[in-house]
Amino acid sequence: MTRIINKPKDTVSQVLNGVAYIQQDILQRVPKTGILLRTDKPSNKVSVISGGGSGHEPAHFGYIGENMLDASVSGPLFIPPTAEEVFEAIQKTDQGLGVLLIIKNFEADVTNFLKAKEMAVKAGHKVGHVIVNDDCSVETGSFEKRRRGVAGTVFVHKILGAAASEGKSVVELVKLGETVIQSMNSLGVAVSSGTSLTGDKFNFDLEKDMISFGIGIHGEEGYRSEPFYSSEHLANELINKLLVQYEDYTNKQFAILINGLGTTTIMEQYVFSNDVRRLLDLEDVEIVFAKTGNYMTSTDMAGISLTFLEIVDDKWLDYLKMTTNAFAW
Amino acid sequence: MTRIINKPKDTVSQVLNGVAYIQQDILQRVPKTGILLRTDKPSNKVSVISGGGSGHEPAHFGYIGENMLDASVSGPLFIPPTAEEVFEAIQKTDQGLGVLLIIKNFEADVTNFLKAKEMAVKAGHKVGHVIVNDDCSVETGSFEKRRRGVAGTVFVHKILGAAASEGKSVVELVKLGETVIQSMNSLGVAVSSGTSLTGDKFNFDLEKDMISFGIGIHGEEGYRSEPFYSSEHLANELINKLLVQYEDYTNKQFAILINGLGTTTIMEQYVFSNDVRRLLDLEDVEIVFAKTGNYMTSTDMAGISLTFLEIVDDKWLDYLKMTTNAFAW
Repeated sequence: MTRIINKPKDTVSQVLNGVAYIQQDILQRVPKTGILLRTDKPSNKVSVISGGGSGHEPAHFGYIGENMLDASVSGPLFIPPTAEEVFEAIQKTDQGLGVLLIIKNFEADVTNFLKAKEMAVKAGHKVGHVIVNDDCSVETGSFEKRRRGVAGTVFVHKILGAAASEGKSVVELVKLGETVIQSMNSLGVAVSSGTSLTGDKFNFDLEKDMISFGIGIHGEEGYRSEPFYSSEHLANELINKLLVQYEDYTNKQFAILINGLGTTTIMEQYVFSNDVRRLLDLEDVEIVFAKTGNYMTSTDMAGISLTFLEIVDDKWLDYLKMTTNAFAW
Repeated sequence: MTRIINKPKDTVSQVLNGVAYIQQDILQRVPKTGILLRTDKPSNKVSVISGGGSGHEPAHFGYIGENMLDASVSGPLFIPPTAEEVFEAIQKTDQGLGVLLIIKNFEADVTNFLKAKEMAVKAGHKVGHVIVNDDCSVETGSFEKRRRGVAGTVFVHKILGAAASEGKSVVELVKLGETVIQSMNSLGVAVSSGTSLTGDKFNFDLEKDMISFGIGIHGEEGYRSEPFYSSEHLANELINKLLVQYEDYTNKQFAILINGLGTTTIMEQYVFSNDVRRLLDLEDVEIVFAKTGNYMTSTDMAGISLTFLEIVDDKWLDYLKMTTNAFAW
């Protein structure tokens, strides 16, 4: 597949310039960095920052805005930003009340963000962090849960972003974030692996009519491939694997996120959404908030992920429903 | 490519049920029809209706909401809804002040929507219509402009939807719509044609690293294929072909829409947006409104379209900027 880009090495910088142009009412780029900042720097609140490698668009810059993020920091394709850049984002957004970092649980991301935190604390900033680990897929062989940070990260952006606007402190946000993250589980599948930046190489092989369970958002292969039968069959498998994470789930309330991984059409996303709805109705599971769309992609992977967040506190639902001008929410 | 669907014949109905579930705060389905209606039926305004074949998602249901559409009517994949269904949507939304139909210029769409209008007028409704024909691609051979209705339709939804909320009459909306449509030009290209609903057949052949100019939004092949060089080269070609439609364009103001045709990644869309920005800056063309995203797709076609709308009246810009809860704007 031909990609509509220029020199591959210039892609991320050009994406950021394009976003800063089109979304100029909301955000602006710090020149020559991967940092995008809210245009209307709000004061009197903790600043909320997230980021990671590129290739997950509209994450994370699509979540900059009122009641969500104050800044995003983008690295090269599937490579997190440097600690120095994250530190710069902290310096640029801290209004004196401190900063919260939302990190996806991948080793390199955690390393760079925590190093930035260390630099910032040393420089006198108050900094907290949460590590999102919603992925409940398992390792081939050991069946250990992988606990990577995937699409559920977007729910964390919204809840913590809204809570920060309400005046919560860094310590309160960390505590809230940890409870939210413990209540969340995601699982993703691919019907096509997606290709390299230049579009000339598949990230992994997947035979036609096969589906890979537990893929990652950097084109990582899943832990098992099986034949694809139907959207309904898939919805059933994913729901079963996710609900088993919760005890007594018929007495709980959930928010769900149905996330397209890149090139899955909107038609497919809504067919799948309809199957999820029907099956959850049959199981008597109460859904109080639901979203469908491309929220956390893996470049041009075709596939879908499903996220369950147990709403432990009604306040979380208020945070999810609070308005935002973030363009991708 | 495997598609995440069930029986192909059930797809459209399941998409509509999925949308009605996920977007239930905004819209609801009229059971067993292709009709989706605004949940909060506003009175005291002309009702604005659009629709067409499926396969263009999020068009048209994604534009239902405040200051946009009151209803959308979806047909089967790439086939417009019947006149009877459009008539039913008119009956269901007319609050006494009449109805405006926004039709894309394809023969079968125009035939069915105008037949519905005839039925509705006979039944006592006041009905006006506009036919969007923003495509300025040409026929192979004759070089006649094709003037199909493509992505610019979304600008018409927004401007006429907002104007209807302001209390304009059917006659005024038709007049406004016609001026907007005359001021608008679009051109689309594909790097991959997209496949059939079951994903097992390409709509047309396109060699690797070739780009097809002037594609349609139903998987139609363009009028010419050329090698793809770069996003910048493409942006330059499209801008030249579009600006030539306007006399004295450096003294005008424009809104632009950069539209992904289905599976083109958000990275590519913003790289292209950045090239458009730079080239228009060099040409001294004033852009007062710009959007980038998947607004009018052709299932899983990979490609992009560019729309220019000359802002003839400042009021149009107000209409474009007016808030809406339509989920895809």
